[in-house]
Amino acid sequence: MEYRIRRSLFGFVAIVAMLASTAARAADPLPSWNDGAAKARIVAFVEAVTQPGGKDFVPVEDRIAVFDNDGTLWAEQPMYVQLFFAIDRVKALAPKHPEWKTQQPFKAVLEGDMKALAASGEKGLVTLVMATHAGMTTTEFEKIVSDWLATARHPATHRPFTKMVYQPMLELLAYLRANGFKTYIVSGGGVEFMRPWTNEVYGVPPEQVIGSSIKTKFEMRDGKPVLVRLPEINFIDDKEGKAIGINAHIGRRPIAAFGNSDGDLQMLQWTTAGDGGRFALYVHHTDGEREWAYDRKATFGRLDKGLDEAKAKGWTVVDMKKDWKVVYPQ
Amino acid sequence: MEYRIRRSLFGFVAIVAMLASTAARAADPLPSWNDGAAKARIVAFVEAVTQPGGKDFVPVEDRIAVFDNDGTLWAEQPMYVQLFFAIDRVKALAPKHPEWKTQQPFKAVLEGDMKALAASGEKGLVTLVMATHAGMTTTEFEKIVSDWLATARHPATHRPFTKMVYQPMLELLAYLRANGFKTYIVSGGGVEFMRPWTNEVYGVPPEQVIGSSIKTKFEMRDGKPVLVRLPEINFIDDKEGKAIGINAHIGRRPIAAFGNSDGDLQMLQWTTAGDGGRFALYVHHTDGEREWAYDRKATFGRLDKGLDEAKAKGWTVVDMKKDWKVVYPQ
Repeated sequence: MEYRIRRSLFGFVAIVAMLASTAARAADPLPSWNDGAAKARIVAFVEAVTQPGGKDFVPVEDRIAVFDNDGTLWAEQPMYVQLFFAIDRVKALAPKHPEWKTQQPFKAVLEGDMKALAASGEKGLVTLVMATHAGMTTTEFEKIVSDWLATARHPATHRPFTKMVYQPMLELLAYLRANGFKTYIVSGGGVEFMRPWTNEVYGVPPEQVIGSSIKTKFEMRDGKPVLVRLPEINFIDDKEGKAIGINAHIGRRPIAAFGNSDGDLQMLQWTTAGDGGRFALYVHHTDGEREWAYDRKATFGRLDKGLDEAKAKGWTVVDMKKDWKVVYPQ
Repeated sequence: MEYRIRRSLFGFVAIVAMLASTAARAADPLPSWNDGAAKARIVAFVEAVTQPGGKDFVPVEDRIAVFDNDGTLWAEQPMYVQLFFAIDRVKALAPKHPEWKTQQPFKAVLEGDMKALAASGEKGLVTLVMATHAGMTTTEFEKIVSDWLATARHPATHRPFTKMVYQPMLELLAYLRANGFKTYIVSGGGVEFMRPWTNEVYGVPPEQVIGSSIKTKFEMRDGKPVLVRLPEINFIDDKEGKAIGINAHIGRRPIAAFGNSDGDLQMLQWTTAGDGGRFALYVHHTDGEREWAYDRKATFGRLDKGLDEAKAKGWTVVDMKKDWKVVYPQ
């Protein structure tokens, strides 16, 4: 017995030592962020709003943080992931649509003619989305998205798209949640394109995902209700739409907002217009080696007006090249 | 010192005894419900989905319960509370609108002619709502609603409307939350008419309120962004709209749904169509003395098809007169 107790005691001491060491490592909640102004400002903000009795203290229920997705939480070059999805769906569905061989923008997609696709403009893209995102039930669409994500790879990195999320931002999401924040995604992307995987990848559950949407129709099929996705735009969650979507969905003003493009500007304006401690951050894509370098002239994720306003208002701007130790999860 | 310690000890014992007694009373989570089938079925459902390892166990994140508001959580007779609000707003705004003296449905409201108002139909009601719910910012509207609720009284009971909530349903909301449920309101009423008070009255925060809405517009005023409410319907959260709204807002299927009218039928169908333990309940207004008795022929809160389907499918139907010890909070 004596021996056993000693062993137990030894085991206990070892566990305590291990926990202490874990705690020491955990003391840096943002290990993939280099020490610099961006990291320091994030930490200072979180400490200010969580300090009981402090002048900027915010009660837990009001600690709402909103994150753009494309270019803020995962890569968006050479084009949005959802566009890769739409293109792959056109190819998969093409055998059932012989007319697409001669119809734009489908012809461009099937021939791999990205120039012609771009020339089809917004109207072409909407046509593409409607043909590939509508006509099925919400349950069927969820499966199509999940199946595609499980096998699709980025053409340049050959990584699954869900491994092209930004490690420093994953840490930031976790850090905010550990401090009582509710983290939301507010994206121009389709809400039902994101919900099947955001919980697993970002720890953001479906009810905290706000995005663009098409209309749905309630129908009874074999005595069971289904929602059928219709080829009709319901809501575009971009620019002004981000503030409108936040109000419609959350019904209170966030205290922190994170974006990377002009499409996020109104979300940052809306967030910072409230009283008390507020935080706005732009991820600036400056790293042409580990990721892509782009801003004022980008086709996807243009950051122009937003960069000027960030400077004028003293918002935090992350220099990806300098501020991030790693980009993607190792 | 001796005396003090004794006193402290005595105090401690007294507190323990008091807590034990409180715990005994707290053993019934639904004290305003009479023992009967409805209460037994609610408790059996909650115990089944929260029993680890049980065949109907549901993980906390999927424990989503949706509640209709008018007639399910608070009274809706002789008409919806929001209509009382709209009528009071017409009267308050009338001095600025001399033309209303001769224009329907405003004339009917100003003359207290409820028959003429009813004759104006849905179109008249929409006109009324647009004239009273649009044209201001979301922040201004929130204050208008809060100010009105603080002083308005029901014409028959002379109670504030927020004291015409159903005590047994307040207990049910709390009981579900104590068992890990996230409770949502899914109402045909205006989402921005409900959000200012649902947290205080029901413990349901703004982000868990789904309702009908009008469109809003993002505008900069004196360098600050505002959302202006427009006289244009955005979404009607009733009937099929309830299933659509739940999917758009929550993105997962609830496991329990509570309603009182045919407007809730699709919500109950949508909820019960999922796999595993599911619960659907109709509040049946059978108490003409303590509240109002109405169902198949009611103008507001008609329960006809829903009552038939509840019987056919074995859903729980609450008989207010028999099942509830009290109606309103004492």
